[in-house]
Amino acid sequence: MAAAARLFRGAARGPPALALARALGSTPPGPAGRGGRRAALAAAGALGGLGLALGLWRRQVALAAAREDEEEKELRQRFMAPPVSGLRELRRRRRELRSRMELLIMETQAEMCRALAALDPGASFVVDSWERKEGGGGISCVLQDGEVFEKAGVNVSVVSGLLSEEAARQMRSRGKSLKAKDGKLPFCAMGVSSVIHPKNPHVPTMHFNYRYFEIEEADGTKQWWFGGGTDLTPTYLNEEDAVHFHKTLKEACDKHDLKLYPKYKKWCDDYFYIKHRGERRGIGGIFFDDLDSPSKEEVFQFVKSCAKAVVPCYIPIVKKHCHDSFTPEEKLWQQLRRGRYVEFNLLYDRGTKFGLLTPGSRIESILMSLPLTARWEYMHNPPESSKEAEILEVLRNPKDWVH
Amino acid sequence: MAAAARLFRGAARGPPALALARALGSTPPGPAGRGGRRAALAAAGALGGLGLALGLWRRQVALAAAREDEEEKELRQRFMAPPVSGLRELRRRRRELRSRMELLIMETQAEMCRALAALDPGASFVVDSWERKEGGGGISCVLQDGEVFEKAGVNVSVVSGLLSEEAARQMRSRGKSLKAKDGKLPFCAMGVSSVIHPKNPHVPTMHFNYRYFEIEEADGTKQWWFGGGTDLTPTYLNEEDAVHFHKTLKEACDKHDLKLYPKYKKWCDDYFYIKHRGERRGIGGIFFDDLDSPSKEEVFQFVKSCAKAVVPCYIPIVKKHCHDSFTPEEKLWQQLRRGRYVEFNLLYDRGTKFGLLTPGSRIESILMSLPLTARWEYMHNPPESSKEAEILEVLRNPKDWVH
Repeated sequence: MAAAARLFRGAARGPPALALARALGSTPPGPAGRGGRRAALAAAGALGGLGLALGLWRRQVALAAAREDEEEKELRQRFMAPPVSGLRELRRRRRELRSRMELLIMETQAEMCRALAALDPGASFVVDSWERKEGGGGISCVLQDGEVFEKAGVNVSVVSGLLSEEAARQMRSRGKSLKAKDGKLPFCAMGVSSVIHPKNPHVPTMHFNYRYFEIEEADGTKQWWFGGGTDLTPTYLNEEDAVHFHKTLKEACDKHDLKLYPKYKKWCDDYFYIKHRGERRGIGGIFFDDLDSPSKEEVFQFVKSCAKAVVPCYIPIVKKHCHDSFTPEEKLWQQLRRGRYVEFNLLYDRGTKFGLLTPGSRIESILMSLPLTARWEYMHNPPESSKEAEILEVLRNPKDWVH
Repeated sequence: MAAAARLFRGAARGPPALALARALGSTPPGPAGRGGRRAALAAAGALGGLGLALGLWRRQVALAAAREDEEEKELRQRFMAPPVSGLRELRRRRRELRSRMELLIMETQAEMCRALAALDPGASFVVDSWERKEGGGGISCVLQDGEVFEKAGVNVSVVSGLLSEEAARQMRSRGKSLKAKDGKLPFCAMGVSSVIHPKNPHVPTMHFNYRYFEIEEADGTKQWWFGGGTDLTPTYLNEEDAVHFHKTLKEACDKHDLKLYPKYKKWCDDYFYIKHRGERRGIGGIFFDDLDSPSKEEVFQFVKSCAKAVVPCYIPIVKKHCHDSFTPEEKLWQQLRRGRYVEFNLLYDRGTKFGLLTPGSRIESILMSLPLTARWEYMHNPPESSKEAEILEVLRNPKDWVH
């Protein structure tokens, strides 16, 4: 794996503006780079008498520099780091769905990071832009050991290359077989993925992930599908929060089709099941995979609505509880629930497994989902009618929160 | 799963002696139980004149009671709880290897628990005897949150029943196929398994496991094999400890064959490999599986030597360091290493995976191996030439400790 290339904020190697310009590929027209530009100017001067040409050239250089400044400014405002595919490239291919999806995941990352940072003013996100040797790369934003958040990670990755038929089959939950040329399939996978573990046991953990895949078959046919979901993992049950969370997700789904929320709510309860414990990881939300109908545009619009619902479904809950007082016993129960979170992610989560098995994947970005701290006690059984037993009951028998 | 039946020490339901007698099946001859005995005595008296018969009867009852007392005493001295198969049954089948192995794992459990308890006098082991609905059961001994040990578990299980061909194949690391009658294979699996997580970061974590399998094929042939190993996971490297640990294991192996230690030392380094991190879980020890030659007796004697080496290879290291002073930074590094321990156990360990997938397995006994507390930090990289980097180097490139 090509190691984390650069720390965008903090220990960046060069001035951020330059790094951005480099990532954008926005050097002025003509001989590339600073040395090349100086040489070109000297050559033009040596020819003598070509004042007009020189003037035009200078103007072009100035215009390019202004454009560069503007793009950098726009990038800073919109994103946490330059997009993997480069903003210019994304603009050139602006009608293609993969460009629109890359912009959506970049915007979702920035919206979430800013909303979280606003609630934890003392802490700041470390932004790592990394490259994948085999193609593509990503941007990991992590806030660790803050006042409000124990660990908050929001990760974007945009990777491409060639997949074996076996790996391609594993990527689809329905395991469709795909016709490859010479056993290899060109693919592109991108997504935004996030896990937020707060400090206060009265603020729930939240996870979301929205992703898009494209695979090209031997005859040039492009298979594509979307996947994603948003789900909540409280330490203690707060019915009002659960209703708010599910209702916000339902509203996002209902804009597109009234059948979506009930279907994806159930899928979520089924997916986040810790089989050996007989309980779910949390109180659910929505989850879907392999979504390729009714049309690419319609599915994208649905995914966009879900992504836009992330901040409104979670941030109000954080605001409401982040200053709640709590006891050491409540903190301990939170730690035990974090242990269950680890069990699910390492034993069952398809994304984690697939990530760890993919050559060139970035381990630190995949395991960013693990909490800062977790605990396992032998035979811990909360007493009946306790607040701990109350949440366990809901994890064992999922509830309908919005009807 | 049949839930943990009884807390042997602490909240036992009846007097421990009675519970033991019940488990042993050691009721006096004649009409069973106390009520039965009284009724028999009354009946004998009513017949009148049968003084001799009554005298003989009384003597038999007294003798049975004395034998019961003696057996209970022996049990208390030798084991943590009554053996799953019952002491009387084990005595009856004393020449069979499965009885000798069950006694060995019971003794190993008791030796280890007593050695650990002696070092942590304030704490005590909770002893759970549990039954498996499908056949057999186990004894879990767990010490939690002591002065010296954060979590110490020593588990015995003796299970039997019917396996599917697929499950039987998965049990053997070489995946040999076995001929079943009606698709089912009668099997018996037993073992002692232990993980000790100390509090002090200068005391290493230790794990050992010794196990025996028997599977009966359709034609009555019995396939059998042993597996096992002992390995050390220090937070910081102490060369003297590493040498002592490996040397003690080597001596146990060398008694049987000089080729064993080098072979099983390498197997251990290969097995406890956290692939996605490119590092081993610890500094190794020995590991072997599917051992079925040169003969059942010789392999049993080898396994016995290994089991007897557990206390001498580990306990002196605990004694030496359990009062060492340590800094908060050292404790933090220990917690991060515990995180890696969890990653190995949940992602790679065949025993854990097999256990969690086996119907009727006891989850709490399997996951007893997880530490009380663990930690994950994003992108934690210890500085070069630090003590943390020193142990990482050894985990990445295993060393030869005894040559």
